[in-house]
Amino acid sequence: MDRAQEKLDSLTKPQGSLGRLEELAKQIAGITKNIVPSLTKKVIFTLAADHGVAEEGISAFPQEVTAQMVYNFLYGGAGINVLARHAGAKVIVADVGVKVKIEIQNSEFRNFIDKKIGYGTKNMAKESAMTTAEAIKSIETGIELFKETSLSGIDIAGTGEMGIANTTSASAITTVFTGCSPKDATGKGTGIDEKTLSKKIETIKKAIRLNNPNPNDAIDVLSKVGGYEIGGLAGIILAASAYSVPIVIDGFISSAAALIAYKLNPKVKDYMIAAHCSVEKGHKIILDYIGLKPVLNLDLRLGEGTGAALAINIVEAGVKILNEMATFKQADVSDRIDEK
Amino acid sequence: MDRAQEKLDSLTKPQGSLGRLEELAKQIAGITKNIVPSLTKKVIFTLAADHGVAEEGISAFPQEVTAQMVYNFLYGGAGINVLARHAGAKVIVADVGVKVKIEIQNSEFRNFIDKKIGYGTKNMAKESAMTTAEAIKSIETGIELFKETSLSGIDIAGTGEMGIANTTSASAITTVFTGCSPKDATGKGTGIDEKTLSKKIETIKKAIRLNNPNPNDAIDVLSKVGGYEIGGLAGIILAASAYSVPIVIDGFISSAAALIAYKLNPKVKDYMIAAHCSVEKGHKIILDYIGLKPVLNLDLRLGEGTGAALAINIVEAGVKILNEMATFKQADVSDRIDEK
Repeated sequence: MDRAQEKLDSLTKPQGSLGRLEELAKQIAGITKNIVPSLTKKVIFTLAADHGVAEEGISAFPQEVTAQMVYNFLYGGAGINVLARHAGAKVIVADVGVKVKIEIQNSEFRNFIDKKIGYGTKNMAKESAMTTAEAIKSIETGIELFKETSLSGIDIAGTGEMGIANTTSASAITTVFTGCSPKDATGKGTGIDEKTLSKKIETIKKAIRLNNPNPNDAIDVLSKVGGYEIGGLAGIILAASAYSVPIVIDGFISSAAALIAYKLNPKVKDYMIAAHCSVEKGHKIILDYIGLKPVLNLDLRLGEGTGAALAINIVEAGVKILNEMATFKQADVSDRIDEK
Repeated sequence: MDRAQEKLDSLTKPQGSLGRLEELAKQIAGITKNIVPSLTKKVIFTLAADHGVAEEGISAFPQEVTAQMVYNFLYGGAGINVLARHAGAKVIVADVGVKVKIEIQNSEFRNFIDKKIGYGTKNMAKESAMTTAEAIKSIETGIELFKETSLSGIDIAGTGEMGIANTTSASAITTVFTGCSPKDATGKGTGIDEKTLSKKIETIKKAIRLNNPNPNDAIDVLSKVGGYEIGGLAGIILAASAYSVPIVIDGFISSAAALIAYKLNPKVKDYMIAAHCSVEKGHKIILDYIGLKPVLNLDLRLGEGTGAALAINIVEAGVKILNEMATFKQADVSDRIDEK
């Protein structure tokens, strides 16, 4: 990182004048241990799973949308497809817990991976969302997904998800780990009204009261109020860090997964880049808790990895600055007056 | 714009969940009067000129850097070259008032245009920076530049500049039009120390006291405390608006040019997109005054059009959302529960 900083300071611009771009370039150089890092192979992992708590009626969309959106991802019509193409990133779509069987052959869509752990979690307002074994398996599944995909190379990865009712789970996770109130951590998700928002907050309170997750045990929290895709993304974050691959965290749900990964191993922080700060109010609480500064503030609240795709574009711009700009010496440009 | 909004609302995402991307797409549809807008031809106009006020010793870099950076732009080693390549944008470099002759043939670098109005402005701390005729000519030069370049097509344009001491001019313009204090509008530019900052503020006060620019006469302000590149960019902004081309405003100096264009014709506001909010404190004052919301907040303070190039990337992402996403109907995805 020091060598990257030296290089950045020799380029034909006032020192530090490219702000966050320079910080990001330096971080990537540090993670990859390379002052000429290459970000050619970009991958977004979009994990889909269903949530039993959806039966409480706390989402604006019916549960069947999770599976429908998986097909939309595979046919290339979703927001993440458009923005990943824009960023030159591949989207890996994994079913880690959708309630119905996804009716395709893996060979039909090479970017689809069937890693189903279960047919949706249980309703956390009535019982634990997962067993401990399932929670561990969800993390292991994410690790496997990353390892298998990395065989064809990953220079930078992004997280994404789809799962009706998963902001409810993310808000519960935020509440348990940060100690904030359920009200402060809960937003309108895909667009619920005030009445449904109140029900959502009550549901989260009930789930926490009933299950009593232990904030000092990330697996306990994940199993009781988490989701398969959240565990899977936590696994991907842990694996990316272990493989020295920069991992761009998308929105609120991805950040709840990042919080679980961080609780399991705080070192992952150095490998993470927060893509953006979303409209979901719990998101900022998580970013502040871990100490991550978002790259973008575009009032996004879609998930899927859309913010990660946009941020990867900015990270790549920073790396190109590091790699491609001329130095004062190369361009024969005079340096500062006081440096003469 | 209404038709673009309808289309955005039919796409497979919760309504409004792509935040600023959707707003930008809608604005582009409105400007171009096209709900399938194409942003293929992207151009950044980087205008260079010198400022007589540099002799007051208020910049961290010597005046010769303006010309040196023009060569750097032409050889492709500057920040704007890297970021414009990243955005797939062409950079048009124009000398509108560099203090020395740029020693190349227009034919050697096809992206260089010699439109020199004068060999640097006069020192505004001692006299008017330009004559009224020169100020008008600088705006006309920008209009010409845009018109000539548009012959080969411009779908979206960005502004950029290079000129040692031009933050001093931009701060003076901000002060005169918005009525803020010189202190509030003045930052550290390329990185001056506290002592030089005080001198810079005093110089701005002196220039305003001496020249007494009339805030109700944009040409008067431009001629007395402006610069050739600032007038040129104001012309480009006016021309882009007249040609219904979205114009992305880069940093503080570009925004001072935008303020002049806005004062000449407030309708330009609808055609402008503020790329980012820079570290230069006067920038936010201008954006708030005109009522523009920046796309990015990346602590940039380089200018050249670098922020505009990054923002064009985001604007393009928004337009691709509008053009490429599947609708609920196309993808056979269920709509909101309450819409059923």
